[in-house]
Amino acid sequence: MTILVTGAAGFLGARLVKALLAGPSGLPPVSRIISADIRACPIADPRVDNRVGTLVDPAFIGTIVEPDVRIVYHLAAVLSGQAEAEFDTGLQVNLDATRALLEACRSLETAPRFVFSSTVAVFGGDLPAVVPEDIALHPQTSYGTEKAIAELLVSEYSRRGFVDGVICRLATITVRPGKPNSALSSFVSGIIREPLAGVDSVCPVPLDTPIWVSSPAVVTQNLVHAARLRTPALQGRRALNLPGLLVTPAQLLDSLERLGGAAARARVRSENDERISRAMRQWPGALDASRALGLGFVADDDVDSIVRQYISENVA
Amino acid sequence: MTILVTGAAGFLGARLVKALLAGPSGLPPVSRIISADIRACPIADPRVDNRVGTLVDPAFIGTIVEPDVRIVYHLAAVLSGQAEAEFDTGLQVNLDATRALLEACRSLETAPRFVFSSTVAVFGGDLPAVVPEDIALHPQTSYGTEKAIAELLVSEYSRRGFVDGVICRLATITVRPGKPNSALSSFVSGIIREPLAGVDSVCPVPLDTPIWVSSPAVVTQNLVHAARLRTPALQGRRALNLPGLLVTPAQLLDSLERLGGAAARARVRSENDERISRAMRQWPGALDASRALGLGFVADDDVDSIVRQYISENVA
Repeated sequence: MTILVTGAAGFLGARLVKALLAGPSGLPPVSRIISADIRACPIADPRVDNRVGTLVDPAFIGTIVEPDVRIVYHLAAVLSGQAEAEFDTGLQVNLDATRALLEACRSLETAPRFVFSSTVAVFGGDLPAVVPEDIALHPQTSYGTEKAIAELLVSEYSRRGFVDGVICRLATITVRPGKPNSALSSFVSGIIREPLAGVDSVCPVPLDTPIWVSSPAVVTQNLVHAARLRTPALQGRRALNLPGLLVTPAQLLDSLERLGGAAARARVRSENDERISRAMRQWPGALDASRALGLGFVADDDVDSIVRQYISENVA
Repeated sequence: MTILVTGAAGFLGARLVKALLAGPSGLPPVSRIISADIRACPIADPRVDNRVGTLVDPAFIGTIVEPDVRIVYHLAAVLSGQAEAEFDTGLQVNLDATRALLEACRSLETAPRFVFSSTVAVFGGDLPAVVPEDIALHPQTSYGTEKAIAELLVSEYSRRGFVDGVICRLATITVRPGKPNSALSSFVSGIIREPLAGVDSVCPVPLDTPIWVSSPAVVTQNLVHAARLRTPALQGRRALNLPGLLVTPAQLLDSLERLGGAAARARVRSENDERISRAMRQWPGALDASRALGLGFVADDDVDSIVRQYISENVA
């Protein structure tokens, strides 16, 4: 089986490629993974077929959607901070490229499974403490708007039978390794990652801000599950609130102190950034993920398991 | 003041142009109405500046959004029946042209009021008897999907300050004069209009199907109101469920008999069309329009007033 992964060179994409190559139960063996990204996927495996280019280029899209592609993971995106700062770039990557990819899938003989990574940022405005799937989308960022539009496209292309879509509204992935990224929520990883590396870090939002998070391992597991899900069970509602864990920066920092020591905790200071605080206030706290849980998606156990996962994988 | 009306040659567009030229209270006097449509607007008035072309052509869009445009009415659309039959055409007109028009507005020095005609067809799936504004959109037609996406774009361009949007989710306009059109709901007018002209007509859905309707006069009045509305009152929620009247074909036909006679009523026979019945079942019955009513939008009094309006305006 051939799988296409856009954004496969990114942190989450590479992790997903590795998981797919390992042969997860419920999926046919993977013969080839086409990695489509602006650089090569870091996973060294002969089954990884690297295609380096940008999804904004229609010709590139034409070359990556090969006739034998059965599953498409569309992870590539401009993140929230950049989409807010560069309106046109956000529309091109998050909206136009998604549509071009769906169009390319439409021309395949067999409608592929199309797993789309969406976001809690599709929600916004006055929200209840636990956000249900059947509430209207009032995104308050360009990123959220573009993802909400892409959700509608994936649903429509699925209704038409051009793809078999599964839309995963992912929680904020915590703790991401590596460098800060252009997401407004980048600090959620930073306040754990930086202190554990002996670097000072800033929490730009109030310590009691509710944040909906998932660990990289759980998100990867859920993305794999989205490929093997039997989609008639979705009953035409393709967008799923994926499970997550509701945490506050205070809880994350308490966990950091428990597992990383008081010196690590002391490296994080609070300094409000109104731009980030405003965006986080607009994003939902917890999502009602009962439907996804019933379909076999999973959540992290607790905040310590999230911090422990990062330490065991990344801290020498 | 200069106003741009797309779709101004259509039935609703022409009616709106006439109403705007009459100088409705609460709006500055109209010096010019740019009519953008595939043919000339039928209203004979020196202030009507006809531009004949297609919105699918970016060059045409560039010529109609002139620097002094203060209000844009975007009514032009491919209707539900055609959008379902011609997927690409629907996307081009209902999505791409709307986006191009918003982009052209973005380049204006003063963000114009942007009144967008949306539809009850943005709703779909399992719906309550009275559909609130805060329910998730699960459109079940290409037309509904394209309008839902356009709503998100108008909201985002408004949030960015590029336009000052008001999204009017219109009821099915009944009774339309003239010929049947390509809307799946075309029969709702046809079962009144045809018999009054001595022509047989078919009702393709069960007689107890709930349908949300407005008369042409009321819709026109509401579109005018959308231009003078003070938008801070929308509190960022740009999409409004406009008021309507919940009727069934049986009620429409009873009214036809009362006002047009038993012979007219006898010209309508029932013959189920599953394609149309399915679409109508997916569309909402009544909308909760309490917010729009509070903002000064209006509804028809009763079914007889709708049929009477048609007879007085169109039947010799």
